[in-house]
Amino acid sequence: MSVNNFGDRDENHRVSKPTRRQVLFGAAAAAGGALATGAVGIAGAKAAALPVPESAKSMGRPIDPEAYGLPSKFEAHVKRRRTDVFVNKQNFSDWSMTPLQHQHGILTPNGLVFERHHAGTPDIDPKGHKLVIHGMVKQPLQFTMDDLMRYPSVSKFHFLECSGNTLTDWLAVKSKTVQQTHGLLSCTQWTGVPASWLLDEAGLQPGAKWVMFEGADGSSHLRSIPIEQVMDDVLLVYGQGGEMLRPENGYPLRAFIPGWEGNCSVKWLRRIKVSDQPWHFRSETARYTDPMPEGKWRQFSFLMECKSVITNPSGGMQLKGPGLYEIQGFAWSGRGRIKAVDVTVDGGKNWHPAEVEGPVLDKCLTRFRFRWRWRGQPATIASRAVDSTGYVQPSVADIAKVRAIVGFVQHHNGVFPWSVSANGEVKNAVA
Amino acid sequence: MSVNNFGDRDENHRVSKPTRRQVLFGAAAAAGGALATGAVGIAGAKAAALPVPESAKSMGRPIDPEAYGLPSKFEAHVKRRRTDVFVNKQNFSDWSMTPLQHQHGILTPNGLVFERHHAGTPDIDPKGHKLVIHGMVKQPLQFTMDDLMRYPSVSKFHFLECSGNTLTDWLAVKSKTVQQTHGLLSCTQWTGVPASWLLDEAGLQPGAKWVMFEGADGSSHLRSIPIEQVMDDVLLVYGQGGEMLRPENGYPLRAFIPGWEGNCSVKWLRRIKVSDQPWHFRSETARYTDPMPEGKWRQFSFLMECKSVITNPSGGMQLKGPGLYEIQGFAWSGRGRIKAVDVTVDGGKNWHPAEVEGPVLDKCLTRFRFRWRWRGQPATIASRAVDSTGYVQPSVADIAKVRAIVGFVQHHNGVFPWSVSANGEVKNAVA
Repeated sequence: MSVNNFGDRDENHRVSKPTRRQVLFGAAAAAGGALATGAVGIAGAKAAALPVPESAKSMGRPIDPEAYGLPSKFEAHVKRRRTDVFVNKQNFSDWSMTPLQHQHGILTPNGLVFERHHAGTPDIDPKGHKLVIHGMVKQPLQFTMDDLMRYPSVSKFHFLECSGNTLTDWLAVKSKTVQQTHGLLSCTQWTGVPASWLLDEAGLQPGAKWVMFEGADGSSHLRSIPIEQVMDDVLLVYGQGGEMLRPENGYPLRAFIPGWEGNCSVKWLRRIKVSDQPWHFRSETARYTDPMPEGKWRQFSFLMECKSVITNPSGGMQLKGPGLYEIQGFAWSGRGRIKAVDVTVDGGKNWHPAEVEGPVLDKCLTRFRFRWRWRGQPATIASRAVDSTGYVQPSVADIAKVRAIVGFVQHHNGVFPWSVSANGEVKNAVA
Repeated sequence: MSVNNFGDRDENHRVSKPTRRQVLFGAAAAAGGALATGAVGIAGAKAAALPVPESAKSMGRPIDPEAYGLPSKFEAHVKRRRTDVFVNKQNFSDWSMTPLQHQHGILTPNGLVFERHHAGTPDIDPKGHKLVIHGMVKQPLQFTMDDLMRYPSVSKFHFLECSGNTLTDWLAVKSKTVQQTHGLLSCTQWTGVPASWLLDEAGLQPGAKWVMFEGADGSSHLRSIPIEQVMDDVLLVYGQGGEMLRPENGYPLRAFIPGWEGNCSVKWLRRIKVSDQPWHFRSETARYTDPMPEGKWRQFSFLMECKSVITNPSGGMQLKGPGLYEIQGFAWSGRGRIKAVDVTVDGGKNWHPAEVEGPVLDKCLTRFRFRWRWRGQPATIASRAVDSTGYVQPSVADIAKVRAIVGFVQHHNGVFPWSVSANGEVKNAVA
């Protein structure tokens, strides 16, 4: 076959022998030069060979019309991972974490959205799936998936975070990577029907105060949710990131409560019951509660407070010598939009405003960026977010004043530091 | 194992025997009732058995820590497809289309982003990939992927559309589904480095007017792009939908020109050359040109004009009797944001404003929704979009006044109708 068989025949693909330039941050006069991070300068356009790559010398793979597309084989290291600090003996009550350090933008690809389930992932045939609404309603209702997907729908970008995210760092164990410390966090666009539409149709009885969501999985996962929340912005979701929910994320139907801890957004949703009081399920007594200083445990702490973390550079990475680095990370809040993010590179002595990249959406991951010239000194870097209500992400010390930090603590939204050593090694710097 | 082994032991899962309710649009007094689309009403909460589904009686699949997540086996019909109207004998110059009729929200999942390549998909190892910038620059430069990914980056939501999208409907052949008529269209968030930063660093010579992009694939795909565009908003992209580019979409590096025809956003990008004039490559003479009424062919018509299409209901679908339907579709414009979308259900006699769902982003897919009570009559439905510049999507007749509609015509952005027959069958209604 011919290569370069059309156009550009005047090109001989020859440039000069590369020489190292190593323009450092601030060393170049031009604005562009200030960004240079080590590109190789080449002295003349026609002085040396510019080799034609092997990929341009042969045909590539033809389209496989049966295949659902997958990442490059060179990206096989980018995958969900189980915890690296516990030996999880419960194969069916398990979780896997999103590789935040490899993520670009604010979306989580559907194949990398974190998993958390109490009895494994069921493979539910949507043709047989039904949703029932009953209890304190005027007219109990039952829906097939066809019924639900016939309704008008809405699509919203929102983060989803497990209440146990960053939990391991309360304990004396230090996870190495941001995937392990913060990877029970994902973000995409969710599509479904507002729960209020269906509850309005069923008709709430006087005195209705709480709603039960029940999953169709082997654990029959159950949660009690205050009805004012359900009637506000809760969605019954079937779409995720442009397609139907993935099996591990609740296919074919889940609840979705924007800004609340993930386990409330019950997956494989099959039943909604309305009552005048909460049920106090196991997930509301033995699990998903917060220890308080006086020895009591707080129930129904649904909201995921404002939080942020630096993903680049983060634990396990290696800086390649002094120069310009763009510090990047995520900020999010269950209360609203991200208003601002500050970054420190000296362990909290000084804080600098980071750039917050739009679109900045309600209860959605927001990417921040901060250009840092690392001069080779040991450094401790961290981020601190502020949301649209004015709430400031607290330090761990601040949290310890109002809560007890023992056991399987949920809702850790403290400022999270990484250390950078003189040789460029990045490590978890939680005290 | 135990089922329902915690919580909700007071429930006996019994409701009354279902009876059909069939609330029609407008027939119910309550706002919620107005939305009902055929859910089954159940007369009492405890009168009949509510069966526990099989999925709740056993454990599901445990987490596979090596697997990259895939859709449910019940969604196997949702995939990219090749054209159904041509027999494509060129296995390596091929395209596959995105299943728009199954898409939720505005994102295209990475596994379903449309494909178009001239010599198959190369599998490029990013470790060996290089980008060269040369020609009329003060300092030719060469970059590894590590160099490029060390730069600050930006992430933007944009659509990507092939200039040949909807091309088959100029011809006497009628594609059946919206995947076949409009599926050379996808949308996601793209991450990369502004091309201007690297060209500023290389330094443009006086008189520089055009830029060449060359791909590292077997066709060495080449395009000439005006330099003012490259210095404006062109990105050198490595991230797509939260992860690295997929091989078929240019891994590890592509150009991305927001709002311009897809083939200009050269994939597998390996070379940028600066010149004082365009090259007139084969892709700019034999391909990607527009026939005009006077027998001439227009070159360099890069921009994708404002366009829209109804995706639900669309060709191949079947309405299930009279009642409420939410008409949905996409609108987009290479010139800016979508300002408004109108929908007709009577073949263009009357137009009604549709709801445009936010966030409405620049050069990005925008979803519109319009609630339609279908009374069972034959109908012709279509959408018409207006962008932020005031440009109105034209009719096919309008386009025919200024262009010749012959051969492999590109840039078909005409209003696109579907017919609905009395029995609910939806078909391509292009004249």
